[in-house]
Amino acid sequence: MYGQQDISRLVDEYMANLPIPCAPQGIYVPMAYTLAEGGKRLRPTLVCAACNIFSDNILQALPPAAAVEVFHNFTLIHDDIMDNATLRRGRETVFRRWGANTAILSGDATLIFAYMLLGNTPREHLAAALAQFNLLALEVCEGQQYDVDFERADSVSTDDYFHMISLKTAALMARALRIGAIVGGAGEADCDALQDFGLNLGLAFQLQDDLLDAYGDAATFGKSIGGDILERKKSYLMICALAQGFSTEIETILSNGALSDEAKIAQVKQIYDRAGAAAAAREAIEHYTSLALKALEPLSVAPERCDVLRAITLELLNRNK
Amino acid sequence: MYGQQDISRLVDEYMANLPIPCAPQGIYVPMAYTLAEGGKRLRPTLVCAACNIFSDNILQALPPAAAVEVFHNFTLIHDDIMDNATLRRGRETVFRRWGANTAILSGDATLIFAYMLLGNTPREHLAAALAQFNLLALEVCEGQQYDVDFERADSVSTDDYFHMISLKTAALMARALRIGAIVGGAGEADCDALQDFGLNLGLAFQLQDDLLDAYGDAATFGKSIGGDILERKKSYLMICALAQGFSTEIETILSNGALSDEAKIAQVKQIYDRAGAAAAAREAIEHYTSLALKALEPLSVAPERCDVLRAITLELLNRNK
Repeated sequence: MYGQQDISRLVDEYMANLPIPCAPQGIYVPMAYTLAEGGKRLRPTLVCAACNIFSDNILQALPPAAAVEVFHNFTLIHDDIMDNATLRRGRETVFRRWGANTAILSGDATLIFAYMLLGNTPREHLAAALAQFNLLALEVCEGQQYDVDFERADSVSTDDYFHMISLKTAALMARALRIGAIVGGAGEADCDALQDFGLNLGLAFQLQDDLLDAYGDAATFGKSIGGDILERKKSYLMICALAQGFSTEIETILSNGALSDEAKIAQVKQIYDRAGAAAAAREAIEHYTSLALKALEPLSVAPERCDVLRAITLELLNRNK
Repeated sequence: MYGQQDISRLVDEYMANLPIPCAPQGIYVPMAYTLAEGGKRLRPTLVCAACNIFSDNILQALPPAAAVEVFHNFTLIHDDIMDNATLRRGRETVFRRWGANTAILSGDATLIFAYMLLGNTPREHLAAALAQFNLLALEVCEGQQYDVDFERADSVSTDDYFHMISLKTAALMARALRIGAIVGGAGEADCDALQDFGLNLGLAFQLQDDLLDAYGDAATFGKSIGGDILERKKSYLMICALAQGFSTEIETILSNGALSDEAKIAQVKQIYDRAGAAAAAREAIEHYTSLALKALEPLSVAPERCDVLRAITLELLNRNK
């Protein structure tokens, strides 16, 4: 059984040695640029950790793990075009640095490259892994579309919000864990349990992301703080405040041309505080974190085999980036 | 053995009944819009015809055939953003009708949907089909990047041009045919021969496309005539004319603000005529068509099993759209 550090090391090594082609540079330089700045490498670690619950041969999980991570990076490249984003992980976005056309095409190639890596999944598990990967990928696109739709919507319910993030963020983690379990040789019930774990972990993760976007520290978070507020994103915090009747007040602030961006962010956060939005978010994060941990209990393995997943879960609960 | 009409009918039926989801509409309405207007359905027909050379069970080739066609449609959605194109197959492009963001995201979903269809390839051939499909997809992106690079390049050699179209257009046909052969149970040598056939067919096809873009009939071609000229695309015709020293003359015409688009197109075509560009294109088309037909000769099957591919080849040679 591998410890969390071992898994991280294996993932980092594998990601550092991806066979990214060289030419044409217009595609592959932005791809390499995106994949070089690793971020947390959370998703491939989850794939390998899920595999390791059922099998000590986790090397076989590295190709689908890398595929999931590369896919995640593809979504960032294209989302940043749609969001007109300039900063990602503390660096210029591909869109900002090379323009929209390059971001579209190198993003497409990054998505295809993810499938190339997935193609190295052990033959006996390839069909099942591909089916899950396809669902994961389409669900993430659907979640992104709902997120875009929400920006134009006057009101978004918390149900709508959870449906959106279950697709945009949680489906990726849920199916990444299922793919890891499949490659590890897990049975259906164990695969279901890990997918359930991942879904709840993903919901907690996105809620935490919403919270950090408003209350995080720019230096550690890697993105501009308050970006969601300025873009009128229907984050969990915004939805809580809107549900409590602060809609007019927020709109007045955001459409006030005399206010600086910083002032807008500060004033909307004051409303969030009055609405108890951050407290509600923290409560929801703890709720879904506890559901995630509970989902691991029925697994047909010795409890200590889930130690890595439990440790990751608690780290995410307390993260500041 | 199936005739060309039978194959076309099977392909049309399969394409008309693709399980495209409904919600969110922002993704799936543009996807359905794109896939409904079929065009020639040339590529899926090639996959099925290649399978049929080796096996009478061509139903098994329909999922990868549809995957190739859906992939092709994905490339059109994204290319039309990059080319700022308004018209495609006689209708508004997705980009024009719904905007760039929708075209990016529904294009992404269309690419993923292609992989979903590919996932229904018979299990024993899935790994090989996926590997070929991945190469096909990445090569098409690479070709598109070279095409974009060429627009900014002062000079492009015919070698550069053939390298670009061998990736952007011919790789798709070559690997589509190989995938069909794989699913039909062909051996390596036969797969190689069909890929070679497809490569040459694809080169002839793209040359014909370049020719039609300048000399076709707008009503049958489905795109604006002369678009390549106005966009300064390095088509085969343009490369021939540039190679013969008409560079300054062409640039003078295209940058003359007093000329209408129609006048620019007419004057550049006069230069093409003086350069013998259209004649050179027609000669190259015949050359690659004959190489394609020759590539079928060493196949380990009765010659009549290639009748459909030969008929398609001759049709393409004489097409006007």
